Amino acid sequence: MKKGMGTITAPWKQLLLNALESNSHLKHSSYFQLATVGCNGRPSNRTLVFRGFQESSDKFHINTDNRTLKIEELKHCPFAEICWYFTDSWEQFRISGRVDIIDGSNPDTFKLQQREKSWFASSVKSRLQYLGPNPGLPRISEHQSEEEVRLDPSIGPVAAFCLLVLDPDQVDYLNLKNNERVKFISTLDVNGVKNWTSERINP
Amino acid sequence: MKKGMGTITAPWKQLLLNALESNSHLKHSSYFQLATVGCNGRPSNRTLVFRGFQESSDKFHINTDNRTLKIEELKHCPFAEICWYFTDSWEQFRISGRVDIIDGSNPDTFKLQQREKSWFASSVKSRLQYLGPNPGLPRISEHQSEEEVRLDPSIGPVAAFCLLVLDPDQVDYLNLKNNERVKFISTLDVNGVKNWTSERINP
Repeated sequence: MKKGMGTITAPWKQLLLNALESNSHLKHSSYFQLATVGCNGRPSNRTLVFRGFQESSDKFHINTDNRTLKIEELKHCPFAEICWYFTDSWEQFRISGRVDIIDGSNPDTFKLQQREKSWFASSVKSRLQYLGPNPGLPRISEHQSEEEVRLDPSIGPVAAFCLLVLDPDQVDYLNLKNNERVKFISTLDVNGVKNWTSERINP
Repeated sequence: MKKGMGTITAPWKQLLLNALESNSHLKHSSYFQLATVGCNGRPSNRTLVFRGFQESSDKFHINTDNRTLKIEELKHCPFAEICWYFTDSWEQFRISGRVDIIDGSNPDTFKLQQREKSWFASSVKSRLQYLGPNPGLPRISEHQSEEEVRLDPSIGPVAAFCLLVLDPDQVDYLNLKNNERVKFISTLDVNGVKNWTSERINP
Protein backbone atom coordinates (compact mmCIF):
# COMPACT_ATOMS: atom_id res chain seq x y z
CA MET A 1 0.00 0.00 0.00
CA LYS A 2 1.54 3.25 -1.13
CA LYS A 3 -0.18 5.27 1.56
CA GLY A 4 1.53 3.33 4.34
CA MET A 5 5.04 3.98 3.06
CA GLY A 6 7.25 6.36 4.93
CA THR A 7 5.11 6.55 8.07
CA ILE A 8 8.27 6.54 10.19
CA THR A 9 8.94 10.26 10.55
CA ALA A 10 12.16 11.37 8.89
CA PRO A 11 14.57 12.88 11.44
CA TRP A 12 14.93 16.16 9.49
CA LYS A 13 11.17 16.66 9.26
CA GLN A 14 10.81 18.11 12.76
CA LEU A 15 13.63 20.59 12.03
CA LEU A 16 11.76 21.71 8.92
CA LEU A 17 8.41 21.95 10.72
CA ASN A 18 10.12 24.06 13.41
CA ALA A 19 11.62 26.36 10.76
CA LEU A 20 8.21 26.74 9.07
CA GLU A 21 6.67 27.57 12.44
CA SER A 22 9.32 30.11 13.48
CA ASN A 23 9.20 31.85 10.08
CA SER A 24 5.43 31.59 9.59
CA HIS A 25 4.94 35.36 10.06
CA LEU A 26 6.69 35.82 6.69
CA LYS A 27 4.60 35.24 3.57
CA HIS A 28 7.67 34.03 1.67
CA SER A 29 8.54 31.36 4.26
CA SER A 30 6.67 28.80 2.14
CA TYR A 31 8.69 29.70 -0.99
CA PHE A 32 11.71 27.70 -2.04
CA GLN A 33 13.91 27.31 -5.11
CA LEU A 34 13.69 24.10 -7.12
CA ALA A 35 16.62 23.14 -9.32
CA THR A 36 16.23 20.73 -12.23
CA VAL A 37 18.39 19.76 -15.18
CA GLY A 38 17.34 21.25 -18.50
CA CYS A 39 17.04 19.19 -21.69
CA ASN A 40 20.27 20.90 -22.87
CA GLY A 41 22.07 19.59 -19.76
CA ARG A 42 22.22 23.02 -18.12
CA PRO A 43 20.68 23.63 -14.70
CA SER A 44 17.35 25.41 -14.23
CA ASN A 45 16.18 27.12 -11.06
CA ARG A 46 12.92 28.80 -10.03
CA THR A 47 10.91 29.82 -6.99
CA LEU A 48 7.94 27.60 -6.12
CA VAL A 49 5.46 27.32 -3.27
CA PHE A 50 5.43 24.49 -0.73
CA ARG A 51 1.92 23.00 -0.63
CA GLY A 52 2.48 20.71 2.35
CA PHE A 53 3.53 17.14 2.92
CA GLN A 54 1.69 14.18 1.56
CA GLU A 55 -0.29 12.66 4.46
CA SER A 56 1.78 10.44 6.79
CA SER A 57 4.88 10.87 4.68
CA ASP A 58 7.89 13.08 4.04
CA LYS A 59 6.99 13.78 0.41
CA PHE A 60 6.70 17.41 -0.72
CA HIS A 61 3.72 18.68 -2.69
CA ILE A 62 4.15 21.40 -5.32
CA ASN A 63 1.52 22.69 -7.75
CA THR A 64 2.55 23.64 -11.24
CA ASP A 65 1.31 24.22 -14.76
CA ASN A 66 2.09 21.27 -17.00
CA ARG A 67 2.78 23.66 -19.89
CA THR A 68 5.92 24.98 -18.13
CA LEU A 69 9.41 23.92 -19.18
CA LYS A 70 10.09 22.19 -15.86
CA ILE A 71 7.69 19.38 -16.81
CA GLU A 72 9.69 18.64 -19.94
CA GLU A 73 12.87 18.82 -17.87
CA LEU A 74 11.58 16.47 -15.16
CA LYS A 75 10.46 13.94 -17.79
CA HIS A 76 14.02 14.04 -19.11
CA CYS A 77 15.68 13.90 -15.66
CA PRO A 78 13.30 13.22 -12.73
CA PHE A 79 15.70 14.46 -10.03
CA ALA A 80 15.45 17.85 -8.36
CA GLU A 81 16.94 19.73 -5.44
CA ILE A 82 15.00 22.16 -3.32
CA CYS A 83 17.00 24.93 -1.68
CA TRP A 84 14.93 26.47 1.09
CA TYR A 85 16.37 29.37 3.00
CA PHE A 86 14.49 30.68 6.03
CA THR A 87 15.30 34.38 6.21
CA ASP A 88 14.36 34.90 9.86
CA SER A 89 15.90 31.83 11.50
CA TRP A 90 18.88 31.69 9.11
CA GLU A 91 18.36 28.00 8.34
CA GLN A 92 18.89 26.33 4.97
CA PHE A 93 17.49 22.98 3.84
CA ARG A 94 18.79 21.39 0.66
CA ILE A 95 16.36 18.60 -0.18
CA SER A 96 17.26 16.25 -2.98
CA GLY A 97 14.99 13.63 -4.47
CA ARG A 98 12.96 12.22 -7.29
CA VAL A 99 9.89 14.00 -8.60
CA ASP A 100 6.68 12.31 -9.63
CA ILE A 101 4.61 14.29 -12.15
CA ILE A 102 0.87 13.84 -11.61
CA ASP A 103 -1.36 15.29 -14.30
CA GLY A 104 -4.89 14.34 -15.30
CA SER A 105 -3.70 11.43 -17.44
CA ASN A 106 -2.16 9.55 -14.48
CA PRO A 107 -3.47 5.95 -14.28
CA ASP A 108 -3.11 5.76 -10.46
CA THR A 109 -6.37 6.50 -8.61
CA PHE A 110 -4.62 7.47 -5.36
CA LYS A 111 -2.41 9.95 -7.21
CA LEU A 112 -5.38 11.45 -9.06
CA GLN A 113 -7.11 11.93 -5.69
CA GLN A 114 -4.00 13.71 -4.37
CA ARG A 115 -4.06 16.00 -7.41
CA GLU A 116 -7.74 16.78 -6.92
CA LYS A 117 -7.18 17.50 -3.22
CA SER A 118 -4.35 19.87 -4.07
CA TRP A 119 -6.54 21.67 -6.60
CA PHE A 120 -9.33 22.29 -4.11
CA ALA A 121 -6.83 23.26 -1.41
CA SER A 122 -5.58 26.16 -3.51
CA SER A 123 -7.44 29.45 -3.77
CA VAL A 124 -9.82 30.13 -6.66
CA LYS A 125 -7.51 33.01 -7.66
CA SER A 126 -4.51 30.71 -7.96
CA ARG A 127 -6.60 28.14 -9.87
CA LEU A 128 -7.39 30.81 -12.45
CA GLN A 129 -3.77 31.00 -13.61
CA TYR A 130 -4.12 27.50 -15.08
CA LEU A 131 -6.74 28.90 -17.45
CA GLY A 132 -4.42 31.69 -18.60
CA PRO A 133 -2.19 31.76 -21.68
CA ASN A 134 0.72 29.34 -22.03
CA PRO A 135 3.44 30.33 -19.50
CA GLY A 136 6.75 31.33 -21.11
CA LEU A 137 5.30 31.98 -24.55
CA PRO A 138 5.37 35.49 -26.04
CA ARG A 139 2.70 37.74 -24.58
CA ILE A 140 0.18 38.54 -27.27
CA SER A 141 -2.67 40.38 -25.59
CA GLU A 142 -1.59 43.55 -23.79
CA HIS A 143 -4.58 43.89 -21.53
CA GLN A 144 -5.57 40.34 -20.78
CA SER A 145 -6.66 40.21 -17.19
CA GLU A 146 -7.21 37.17 -14.98
CA GLU A 147 -10.39 38.74 -13.70
CA GLU A 148 -12.01 38.35 -17.12
CA VAL A 149 -11.83 34.56 -16.84
CA ARG A 150 -14.59 32.92 -14.81
CA LEU A 151 -14.17 29.64 -12.96
CA ASP A 152 -16.80 27.60 -11.16
CA PRO A 153 -15.22 26.88 -7.73
CA SER A 154 -16.84 23.42 -7.63
CA ILE A 155 -15.15 22.29 -10.86
CA GLY A 156 -12.22 19.89 -10.45
CA PRO A 157 -8.65 20.30 -11.75
CA VAL A 158 -8.27 21.64 -15.29
CA ALA A 159 -5.96 19.95 -17.81
CA ALA A 160 -2.98 22.26 -17.18
CA PHE A 161 -2.99 21.63 -13.42
CA CYS A 162 -0.24 19.36 -12.32
CA LEU A 163 0.84 18.09 -8.90
CA LEU A 164 4.53 17.42 -8.36
CA VAL A 165 5.50 15.07 -5.54
CA LEU A 166 9.13 15.21 -4.49
CA ASP A 167 10.29 12.11 -2.61
CA PRO A 168 13.48 13.15 -0.77
CA ASP A 169 16.45 10.82 -0.41
CA GLN A 170 18.95 13.33 0.98
CA VAL A 171 18.66 16.45 3.14
CA ASP A 172 21.45 18.88 4.00
CA TYR A 173 20.58 21.11 6.93
CA LEU A 174 22.58 24.25 7.75
CA ASN A 175 21.97 26.60 10.66
CA LEU A 176 23.82 29.89 10.20
CA LYS A 177 23.08 31.09 13.73
CA ASN A 178 24.96 28.31 15.50
CA ASN A 179 27.02 27.23 12.45
CA GLU A 180 25.78 23.64 12.63
CA ARG A 181 25.34 21.44 9.59
CA VAL A 182 23.82 17.98 9.46
CA LYS A 183 23.53 15.66 6.49
CA PHE A 184 20.65 13.16 6.37
CA ILE A 185 20.89 10.25 3.94
CA SER A 186 18.24 7.62 3.30
CA THR A 187 18.46 4.02 2.22
CA LEU A 188 15.62 1.65 1.37
CA ASP A 189 15.32 -1.59 3.35
CA VAL A 190 14.13 -4.89 1.84
CA ASN A 191 10.49 -3.85 2.36
CA GLY A 192 11.00 -0.59 0.50
CA VAL A 193 10.82 1.41 3.75
CA LYS A 194 13.12 4.41 3.93
CA ASN A 195 15.71 4.48 6.70
CA TRP A 196 17.46 7.73 7.50
CA THR A 197 20.93 8.17 8.93
CA SER A 198 22.44 11.50 9.93
CA GLU A 199 25.92 12.89 10.40
CA ARG A 200 27.24 16.24 11.58
CA ILE A 201 29.46 17.75 8.92
CA ASN A 202 31.61 20.89 8.68
CA PRO A 203 29.63 23.97 7.59
CA MET B 1 41.12 43.41 -23.77
CA LYS B 2 38.92 41.48 -21.36
CA LYS B 3 38.19 44.50 -19.23
CA GLY B 4 36.53 46.35 -22.07
CA MET B 5 34.03 43.58 -22.83
CA GLY B 6 30.45 44.04 -21.91
CA THR B 7 30.67 47.76 -21.25
CA ILE B 8 27.30 48.22 -22.95
CA THR B 9 24.94 47.92 -20.00
CA ALA B 10 22.67 44.91 -20.20
CA PRO B 11 18.98 45.94 -20.29
CA TRP B 12 18.07 43.75 -17.26
CA LYS B 13 20.84 45.21 -15.12
CA GLN B 14 18.93 48.35 -14.15
CA LEU B 15 15.95 46.21 -13.10
CA LEU B 16 18.26 44.19 -10.86
CA LEU B 17 19.96 47.28 -9.41
CA ASN B 18 16.49 48.71 -8.65
CA ALA B 19 15.46 45.48 -6.91
CA LEU B 20 18.67 45.48 -4.85
CA GLU B 21 18.00 49.10 -3.88
CA SER B 22 14.36 48.60 -2.94
CA ASN B 23 15.16 45.48 -0.87
CA SER B 24 18.42 46.77 0.63
CA HIS B 25 16.90 47.07 4.13
CA LEU B 26 16.80 43.24 4.22
CA LYS B 27 20.07 41.47 5.04
CA HIS B 28 19.06 38.51 2.88
CA SER B 29 18.45 40.64 -0.23
CA SER B 30 22.00 39.83 -1.40
CA TYR B 31 21.39 36.06 -1.08
CA PHE B 32 20.41 33.95 -4.05
CA GLN B 33 20.23 30.27 -4.95
CA LEU B 34 22.73 28.87 -7.43
CA ALA B 35 21.85 25.67 -9.27
CA THR B 36 24.52 23.49 -10.84
CA VAL B 37 24.58 19.98 -12.26
CA GLY B 38 26.18 17.37 -10.01
CA CYS B 39 28.74 14.86 -11.28
CA ASN B 40 25.99 12.20 -11.01
CA GLY B 41 23.81 14.24 -13.39
CA ARG B 42 21.43 15.35 -10.62
CA PRO B 43 20.85 19.03 -9.88
CA SER B 44 22.43 20.79 -6.89
CA ASN B 45 21.17 23.98 -5.29
CA ARG B 46 22.50 26.21 -2.51
CA THR B 47 22.25 29.74 -1.14
CA LEU B 48 25.17 32.04 -1.92
CA VAL B 49 25.97 35.72 -1.45
CA PHE B 50 26.15 38.24 -4.28
CA ARG B 51 29.52 40.04 -4.08
CA GLY B 52 28.82 42.62 -6.76
CA PHE B 53 29.35 42.97 -10.48
CA GLN B 54 32.73 42.87 -12.13
CA GLU B 55 33.68 46.46 -12.98
CA SER B 56 32.07 47.79 -16.17
CA SER B 57 30.38 44.48 -16.89
CA ASP B 58 27.31 42.37 -16.16
CA LYS B 59 29.28 39.48 -14.65
CA PHE B 60 28.37 38.30 -11.15
CA HIS B 61 30.99 37.77 -8.45
CA ILE B 62 30.57 35.01 -5.87
CA ASN B 63 33.09 33.93 -3.24
CA THR B 64 33.40 30.27 -2.37
CA ASP B 65 35.65 27.65 -0.83
CA ASN B 66 37.36 25.57 -3.49
CA ARG B 67 37.02 22.48 -1.28
CA THR B 68 33.23 22.51 -1.74
CA LEU B 69 31.45 20.09 -4.04
CA LYS B 70 30.23 22.90 -6.34
CA ILE B 71 33.79 23.39 -7.65
CA GLU B 72 33.93 19.76 -8.76
CA GLU B 73 30.48 20.16 -10.29
CA LEU B 74 31.36 23.35 -12.17
CA LYS B 75 34.51 21.75 -13.57
CA HIS B 76 32.29 18.96 -14.86
CA CYS B 77 29.54 21.28 -16.17
CA PRO B 78 30.40 25.02 -16.14
CA PHE B 79 26.80 26.22 -16.47
CA ALA B 80 24.73 27.52 -13.59
CA GLU B 81 21.44 29.26 -12.96
CA ILE B 82 20.91 31.84 -10.23
CA CYS B 83 17.39 32.12 -8.86
CA TRP B 84 17.09 35.40 -6.96
CA TYR B 85 13.82 36.17 -5.29
CA PHE B 86 13.35 39.59 -3.70
CA THR B 87 10.98 39.07 -0.79
CA ASP B 88 9.88 42.69 -0.41
CA SER B 89 9.36 43.72 -4.03
CA TRP B 90 8.13 40.25 -5.16
CA GLU B 91 10.55 40.14 -8.08
CA GLN B 92 12.37 37.07 -9.36
CA PHE B 93 15.46 36.99 -11.56
CA ARG B 94 16.58 33.71 -13.11
CA ILE B 95 20.09 34.31 -14.41
CA SER B 96 21.67 31.61 -16.52
CA GLY B 97 25.28 31.56 -17.65
CA ARG B 98 28.73 30.09 -17.63
CA VAL B 99 30.89 30.16 -14.52
CA ASP B 100 34.61 30.85 -14.46
CA ILE B 101 36.43 29.36 -11.45
CA ILE B 102 39.29 31.57 -10.27
CA ASP B 103 41.54 30.04 -7.65
CA GLY B 104 45.18 30.86 -6.81
CA SER B 105 46.50 28.68 -9.63
CA ASN B 106 44.85 30.75 -12.36
CA PRO B 107 47.40 31.84 -15.02
CA ASP B 108 45.52 35.08 -15.86
CA THR B 109 46.91 38.14 -14.03
CA PHE B 110 43.69 40.15 -14.36
CA LYS B 111 41.67 37.29 -12.89
CA LEU B 112 44.11 36.88 -10.00
CA GLN B 113 43.76 40.60 -9.28
CA GLN B 114 39.96 40.20 -9.24
CA ARG B 115 40.30 37.34 -6.76
CA GLU B 116 42.59 39.37 -4.52
CA LYS B 117 40.21 42.35 -4.63
CA SER B 118 37.32 40.09 -3.67
CA TRP B 119 39.34 38.68 -0.74
CA PHE B 120 40.13 42.09 0.69
CA ALA B 121 36.55 43.28 0.08
CA SER B 122 35.19 40.58 2.41
CA SER B 123 35.28 40.91 6.19
CA VAL B 124 38.09 39.35 8.22
CA LYS B 125 35.45 37.17 9.91
CA SER B 126 34.28 35.76 6.59
CA ARG B 127 37.90 35.25 5.46
CA LEU B 128 38.45 33.06 8.53
CA GLN B 129 36.07 30.38 7.26
CA TYR B 130 38.57 29.53 4.50
CA LEU B 131 41.01 28.47 7.22
CA GLY B 132 38.45 26.17 8.84
CA PRO B 133 38.03 22.43 8.35
CA ASN B 134 37.02 21.01 4.96
CA PRO B 135 33.33 21.94 4.30
CA GLY B 136 31.03 18.94 3.93
CA LEU B 137 33.37 16.48 5.62
CA PRO B 138 32.38 14.81 8.91
CA ARG B 139 32.81 17.11 11.89
CA ILE B 140 35.61 15.78 14.06
CA SER B 141 36.27 18.39 16.72
CA GLU B 142 33.20 19.23 18.77
CA HIS B 143 34.38 22.54 20.11
CA GLN B 144 36.41 23.99 17.29
CA SER B 145 35.77 27.68 17.18
CA GLU B 146 36.57 30.14 14.42
CA GLU B 147 37.80 32.60 16.99
CA GLU B 148 40.74 30.34 17.85
CA VAL B 149 42.18 30.83 14.36
CA ARG B 150 44.16 34.02 13.85
CA LEU B 151 44.49 35.76 10.52
CA ASP B 152 46.66 38.72 9.62
CA PRO B 153 44.24 41.14 7.83
CA SER B 154 47.01 42.25 5.45
CA ILE B 155 47.64 38.73 4.14
CA GLY B 156 46.23 37.99 0.67
CA PRO B 157 43.86 35.18 -0.34
CA VAL B 158 44.51 31.74 1.15
CA ALA B 159 44.58 28.60 -1.01
CA ALA B 160 40.94 27.62 -0.38
CA PHE B 161 39.59 31.02 -1.42
CA CYS B 162 37.97 30.95 -4.81
CA LEU B 163 36.20 33.61 -6.87
CA LEU B 164 33.40 32.49 -9.15
CA VAL B 165 32.47 34.77 -12.04
CA LEU B 166 29.13 34.05 -13.67
CA ASP B 167 28.80 35.46 -17.17
CA PRO B 168 25.06 35.56 -17.90
CA ASP B 169 23.64 34.75 -21.32
CA GLN B 170 19.94 34.64 -20.38
CA VAL B 171 17.81 36.43 -17.77
CA ASP B 172 14.18 35.70 -16.98
CA TYR B 173 12.54 38.51 -14.99
CA LEU B 174 9.23 38.05 -13.20
CA ASN B 175 7.36 40.70 -11.23
CA LEU B 176 4.64 39.16 -9.08
CA LYS B 177 3.13 42.51 -8.14
CA ASN B 178 2.14 43.48 -11.69
CA ASN B 179 2.36 39.96 -13.15
CA GLU B 180 4.88 41.00 -15.81
CA ARG B 181 7.54 38.69 -17.16
CA VAL B 182 10.36 39.56 -19.54
CA LYS B 183 12.92 37.27 -21.08
CA PHE B 184 16.34 38.68 -22.00
CA ILE B 185 18.53 36.68 -24.38
CA SER B 186 22.07 37.53 -25.44
CA THR B 187 24.00 36.79 -28.59
CA LEU B 188 27.64 37.52 -29.34
CA ASP B 189 28.46 39.70 -32.36
CA VAL B 190 31.55 39.19 -34.57
CA ASN B 191 33.67 41.22 -32.11
CA GLY B 192 32.61 39.03 -29.19
CA VAL B 193 30.44 41.81 -27.77
CA LYS B 194 27.22 40.68 -26.14
CA ASN B 195 23.97 41.97 -27.59
CA TRP B 196 20.78 41.61 -25.59
CA THR B 197 17.26 41.28 -26.91
CA SER B 198 14.14 41.18 -24.76
CA GLU B 199 10.62 39.89 -25.12
CA ARG B 200 7.55 40.05 -22.87
CA ILE B 201 6.30 36.55 -22.15
CA ASN B 202 3.32 35.10 -20.29
CA PRO B 203 3.94 34.74 -16.51
